Amino acid sequence: MNLDAIFKPKSVALIGASPEPNKIGHALLRGLLKSFPGKIYPINPKYKELMTLDCYKNISDVPGKVDLAVVAVPAPIVPDIMQDCGKKGVKGSIIISGGFKEVGNVELENKLKKVANRYKIAVIGPNCLGVLDNYSGVDTIFNPSYKMHRPRKGGISFMTQSGAVGAVVMDWAGYRGFGVSKFVSYGNALNIDEVDLLEYFEKDSTTKVICSYMEGTRRGKELIRVAKRVSKHKPIIAIKSGRTEHGAKAIASHTGSLAGSIKVWDSAFKQSGVIKAKRVDSMFDYARLFAEQPLPRGDRVAIVTNGGGFGVMATDAVIYYGLRMAELDKKMLTKMKKKMPTYTVFRNPFDLVGDADAERYRHALEGVMNDENVDSVICILLMQTADLGSEVVEVISEINDKYDHKPLVICSTGGEYAQLHKRLLEEMGIPTYDTLADAARSLAALTHYEEFLNAPVSIPHELKK
Amino acid sequence: MNLDAIFKPKSVALIGASPEPNKIGHALLRGLLKSFPGKIYPINPKYKELMTLDCYKNISDVPGKVDLAVVAVPAPIVPDIMQDCGKKGVKGSIIISGGFKEVGNVELENKLKKVANRYKIAVIGPNCLGVLDNYSGVDTIFNPSYKMHRPRKGGISFMTQSGAVGAVVMDWAGYRGFGVSKFVSYGNALNIDEVDLLEYFEKDSTTKVICSYMEGTRRGKELIRVAKRVSKHKPIIAIKSGRTEHGAKAIASHTGSLAGSIKVWDSAFKQSGVIKAKRVDSMFDYARLFAEQPLPRGDRVAIVTNGGGFGVMATDAVIYYGLRMAELDKKMLTKMKKKMPTYTVFRNPFDLVGDADAERYRHALEGVMNDENVDSVICILLMQTADLGSEVVEVISEINDKYDHKPLVICSTGGEYAQLHKRLLEEMGIPTYDTLADAARSLAALTHYEEFLNAPVSIPHELKK
Repeated sequence: MNLDAIFKPKSVALIGASPEPNKIGHALLRGLLKSFPGKIYPINPKYKELMTLDCYKNISDVPGKVDLAVVAVPAPIVPDIMQDCGKKGVKGSIIISGGFKEVGNVELENKLKKVANRYKIAVIGPNCLGVLDNYSGVDTIFNPSYKMHRPRKGGISFMTQSGAVGAVVMDWAGYRGFGVSKFVSYGNALNIDEVDLLEYFEKDSTTKVICSYMEGTRRGKELIRVAKRVSKHKPIIAIKSGRTEHGAKAIASHTGSLAGSIKVWDSAFKQSGVIKAKRVDSMFDYARLFAEQPLPRGDRVAIVTNGGGFGVMATDAVIYYGLRMAELDKKMLTKMKKKMPTYTVFRNPFDLVGDADAERYRHALEGVMNDENVDSVICILLMQTADLGSEVVEVISEINDKYDHKPLVICSTGGEYAQLHKRLLEEMGIPTYDTLADAARSLAALTHYEEFLNAPVSIPHELKK
Repeated sequence: MNLDAIFKPKSVALIGASPEPNKIGHALLRGLLKSFPGKIYPINPKYKELMTLDCYKNISDVPGKVDLAVVAVPAPIVPDIMQDCGKKGVKGSIIISGGFKEVGNVELENKLKKVANRYKIAVIGPNCLGVLDNYSGVDTIFNPSYKMHRPRKGGISFMTQSGAVGAVVMDWAGYRGFGVSKFVSYGNALNIDEVDLLEYFEKDSTTKVICSYMEGTRRGKELIRVAKRVSKHKPIIAIKSGRTEHGAKAIASHTGSLAGSIKVWDSAFKQSGVIKAKRVDSMFDYARLFAEQPLPRGDRVAIVTNGGGFGVMATDAVIYYGLRMAELDKKMLTKMKKKMPTYTVFRNPFDLVGDADAERYRHALEGVMNDENVDSVICILLMQTADLGSEVVEVISEINDKYDHKPLVICSTGGEYAQLHKRLLEEMGIPTYDTLADAARSLAALTHYEEFLNAPVSIPHELKK
């Protein structure tokens, strides 16, 4: 099934639209009005007009063509609604309503599935938050907007089996300035699941990195087959939760998925080049780096810092995550000595010490970016010092634009002043981390992906048997 | 030497006080005027008055007694200044000035040390940020205050060999609402080092938890001996950086300390009950939990959540960090069934689902707090949902006050709305974490410390030989 009706509709019908402020059908209508540029048809037999739009009794009454039906009505009537949609020629539907398989109503869900399949309607849901597409303007996330940020446009697409995980992650991505293309909470996965979404994201031009939160799958073999193909040209970063026996049990009471052996999952991920993340924050730590920065040509890292202690801890982190400390080129360092005070530490970590200003950072970053012994750069910015001002943001942005062949990540932490600059850097597409561990771990994931891509093609040992 | 002159002086002389805005001697004077309630004597031969205070040529000219001398003058004249301080009867000094051993001036440092020891002056520094004492008002951190927060009063004391690490951590602690008693950046440790500070913190009534960032020590045996004694009644959480060979090399160019074998350090920490942290953020994750919450009686954790996916990941984290999932008491759950919707998940994780409000949290938390099968509680708050409002902060605060025998930690993440509530909870003394991993790891550290305290007294195997 083609999912364009879901992600790129020209017209949307909202079945269950409502004028009552505390209803989901109201929040959905407001959200669509705010974000969606195409035709919107509210459907509710009780009203003739809703928020200045004509409101219709039934989808069959809509005068024009409807590409996407967003459904937020009680579960028992959803199959009939789907039938009406099918007759109207709708090709995509997002069913927000819960009350199906997840609460034991398997029969109702099966009935719904039959109708959807008969009319070849691609369904996201039921029992989900639905879709946020930053490019087409489809937005069915009904959480109050003051409680939940929307992320800016960008290259990360994220699919999640859990709506709550999705809501929190989108809120957090918006707050931190991360760029997102598509978000899909697919709930019970009636006839569209993680495999279909993966294939759609594969071809989607605005998706540069694919993220996924999964509790289980019904199509393990196809998932591996598709992932293997996709990861050769687009990185896939996945969380498989239920990594422990108790976690797997918790899944049974949550989405009812079969969690499966984590060893099998880990091995499948490895074979297919899927980057494993254990936490939602590290998933996005990796994703924004993959989306914004080039692949390194090797594992030799240069550290630039204005604090010695952070240089030491960064070194520990680089080694701990399996990367190497670059041996900085001596000629480069000799040049640097002419541009910096004698008390600068001219080795790796390159310690510009506590009175470093933006210009000293410019010289040092130019140096390591041009150094053939360096594959990637971790730049530590301690914004608490008196001499380091906001202009360092511009300096780093310039360096990032000029040297687009080597990954550059920033580590900066602290209070409001530091947070402000972190966000400015992040919004310029420069991945900026709170901790050295996060920076080094993310850089290691990027480096290992580069190694996966450039490994000689071979059948993994486990599959030969 | 008694350190009261440093932490609880009645009068402070600032040698090198200055009216020039970009000088450290100016920032120091402003800082003391803002925070220190006792007598302040600026010393500078060029001025008769500074910021409405009488200014003196030399400390010998000060009419009254001087307990503490804060020194910010060029390194070469510091030994003479120290001699003047000694003659005046000063018993404590914080020497901010750099330019000693750390840049190769070993002789100058030795000269200074002789003078300080002759007059029995306890010296913090040289080459340091000095002291912040939230109870006495001593504050010598000269970083601009708009760039660097000061933390609120609380029970954590932190000593650090690296000034920059200290500045960043204090800024971040202030921003996040963590409570701090004392902060000491002790630089070159002329005659007061980590062992002396540990002994002082041991007896300090406002210090409940001791944190330390160390690169090396000159008194390994004494450090172990004192740590062993202190950790029996006050938890010590320490970062030893330079965990890798490359990290140890970086230490040589930073503080010049001998990093020492990390195996020896780890084993010394273990023997003496010191809780090891690998990152500054996890050090404070542990510290605020230790400072604010009681010790658990065992390792059985209950999870309360309004999102199933987070419940699954929390379960994984609890098991991963070596804790156990509590088997919730059936009678308790039966009571709960009368108070909550049927679609609530009555097991551990206790999933209150997406429409949970503050009252549902109150019932669930009362339930697990009263459950004899539960030793500690992780409460997940997804503030993005429509039904969970600010009143949950009050509910959690009430529960926390009422049940002060079981540790309670919160996990909440997201954008501004979530951050606001996190900070409110944190300021009420309820440790609140961004990630499930941080919450579970911290709870594990607390549980392991309880196990250390209650272990039968015995000589560790390694020491018997």
